[in-house]
Amino acid sequence: MSKIEVRRKPFIIGVMGGHEAAAGMLEESRRVGEGIAKRGHVILTGGGDGVMKAASEGASRAGGLVLAVLPSDRAHPLEGYPNDFVDIAIYTGMADARNVINAKTPHVMIAINGGWGTMSEIAHALRNDTPVIALKTPAIDLPYGKCFTAVNTVEAALAEMDRLLRVTGDR
Amino acid sequence: MSKIEVRRKPFIIGVMGGHEAAAGMLEESRRVGEGIAKRGHVILTGGGDGVMKAASEGASRAGGLVLAVLPSDRAHPLEGYPNDFVDIAIYTGMADARNVINAKTPHVMIAINGGWGTMSEIAHALRNDTPVIALKTPAIDLPYGKCFTAVNTVEAALAEMDRLLRVTGDR
Amino acid sequence: MSKIEVRRKPFIIGVMGGHEAAAGMLEESRRVGEGIAKRGHVILTGGGDGVMKAASEGASRAGGLVLAVLPSDRAHPLEGYPNDFVDIAIYTGMADARNVINAKTPHVMIAINGGWGTMSEIAHALRNDTPVIALKTPAIDLPYGKCFTAVNTVEAALAEMDRLLRVTGDR
Amino acid sequence: MSKIEVRRKPFIIGVMGGHEAAAGMLEESRRVGEGIAKRGHVILTGGGDGVMKAASEGASRAGGLVLAVLPSDRAHPLEGYPNDFVDIAIYTGMADARNVINAKTPHVMIAINGGWGTMSEIAHALRNDTPVIALKTPAIDLPYGKCFTAVNTVEAALAEMDRLLRVTGDR
Repeated sequence: MSKIEVRRKPFIIGVMGGHEAAAGMLEESRRVGEGIAKRGHVILTGGGDGVMKAASEGASRAGGLVLAVLPSDRAHPLEGYPNDFVDIAIYTGMADARNVINAKTPHVMIAINGGWGTMSEIAHALRNDTPVIALKTPAIDLPYGKCFTAVNTVEAALAEMDRLLRVTGDR
Repeated sequence: MSKIEVRRKPFIIGVMGGHEAAAGMLEESRRVGEGIAKRGHVILTGGGDGVMKAASEGASRAGGLVLAVLPSDRAHPLEGYPNDFVDIAIYTGMADARNVINAKTPHVMIAINGGWGTMSEIAHALRNDTPVIALKTPAIDLPYGKCFTAVNTVEAALAEMDRLLRVTGDR
Repeated sequence: MSKIEVRRKPFIIGVMGGHEAAAGMLEESRRVGEGIAKRGHVILTGGGDGVMKAASEGASRAGGLVLAVLPSDRAHPLEGYPNDFVDIAIYTGMADARNVINAKTPHVMIAINGGWGTMSEIAHALRNDTPVIALKTPAIDLPYGKCFTAVNTVEAALAEMDRLLRVTGDR
Repeated sequence: MSKIEVRRKPFIIGVMGGHEAAAGMLEESRRVGEGIAKRGHVILTGGGDGVMKAASEGASRAGGLVLAVLPSDRAHPLEGYPNDFVDIAIYTGMADARNVINAKTPHVMIAINGGWGTMSEIAHALRNDTPVIALKTPAIDLPYGKCFTAVNTVEAALAEMDRLLRVTGDR
């Protein structure tokens, strides 16, 4: 079985998005995952289908380690969780409460498109000072603060991630 | 100590909103709480200041039972939690993850104004088919579905609550 | 529908125990629930069958308010939850993580018999300084500390509860 | 910064134990962590001091990847969490409820010594069919079932882990 090279104390990049997503969004998700892995970062998703699976596939094929925080547990599996590209599954059995963990854990969150689940993760992230890069997510009529950047392309999302991680420094 | 009369299997009405709120919002929150209690329903909030406290005060003074699901626990208290009007405090120690419980438990949620915490509760509610009545909350550019009604007055909020509970029936 | 009288800021008494229990244990559970309600306290259980249901039935028939913190939620119901005697169900959707809430919320916990779920609740309670009264629970070879009392009869359990609440005072 | 080699879909081995532990227990914990890493498995702990830190140090020095599921979050740090040897920290902010995740996530749990926190993790593991290898943990007077093996040496713990993973097969 192939090996993955991981840095000590790597940056964790969350990629959040719906389990249903338009085809164009899936291709963009794959490219986001690929960009994360090529930089040596670890990707974290909710472990399901759609954006989560596509981003995980992109990261995995580019040689990255793929983490997922699942709503389900082994004793009560949920169809589609974890998707085929997850290397390390964190089983919570906590349903939607795992969204909070998804929002608190990453050094940077990239939200792609998304529905109410993704909205909850953006809201929890902004409450917890996790920087959010929003790629074509729905707008919310609230002051986003300095932790939020809306972008329209994968390239802009990755460039903003690079910038944020330079500011954060190594940890 | 005074007694509260509670129906067997009462309706639980969640009132969600920020711990900071404008004065006008506090007065509206009190009137929402009062309307809930006068109908014999039990109010549930996050147990803190602002909208949560004002709504709890309104319900308590009108003779209602006041529940709260707290982010903190007794061993690690959090200033302002629970507020003075809480009768029954559910201690979770789970910080933001308690927002999920706030969203899943009520038969109807009334969201008042609010910031990112309230946004997360609305998002979790809509993911879980809890009907949401939004009184002057920020707009989110996503299809809200049939579980969401935006209103502009306390009277409209309470009237919509009455309508929803008639549809739900007794439980 | 009949009304329940509840004190403002009542004492919450947790009753923990397995969803399967021997018949003798069920009768003792009912009497524990009855004793709690007759003293004007509110009972809190995990909302399921066995000890939880029997204690809730005892409390309910004696005119008490019955709370339950459920592992499930309305969108994903779990058979047997909540049992017929629950007045106010707190829906978490968090599976076993709700045991932590059961351990943190009550002023006093009475554990009856029980298996691994109950063991987890006793452990969480002792970590959080919730006093535990253990009625015929399995022994654990660890120093229990001052928060734990083992008893052999319902009468002794209720007497120890009375003593602990006098020490705690009104809150 | 040095790199770690990780297998695709590695086995996750949980090591649970107190943040306070006798010196002998720390040396045994280090050797358990070392044995896990030398076999190419990923270690998961609660991220704190004592057994958790020693096992993480052993795994890290042997070239292994070190995961931790923390009770705290970045916005509300908790002293000693994460310890110096954690590579990937999962932030929950859920206090004791993270013990449930510790119990559900590993393919095999090795519990070392331990107090009430560790007892709760053993109880949650046995409720969820996570195999538990107990190295000098306190006894609990309940039927442990086929998922539990008590051992007295690090070598026996690692041998039982090897056996369990052969049975589980690759995943």
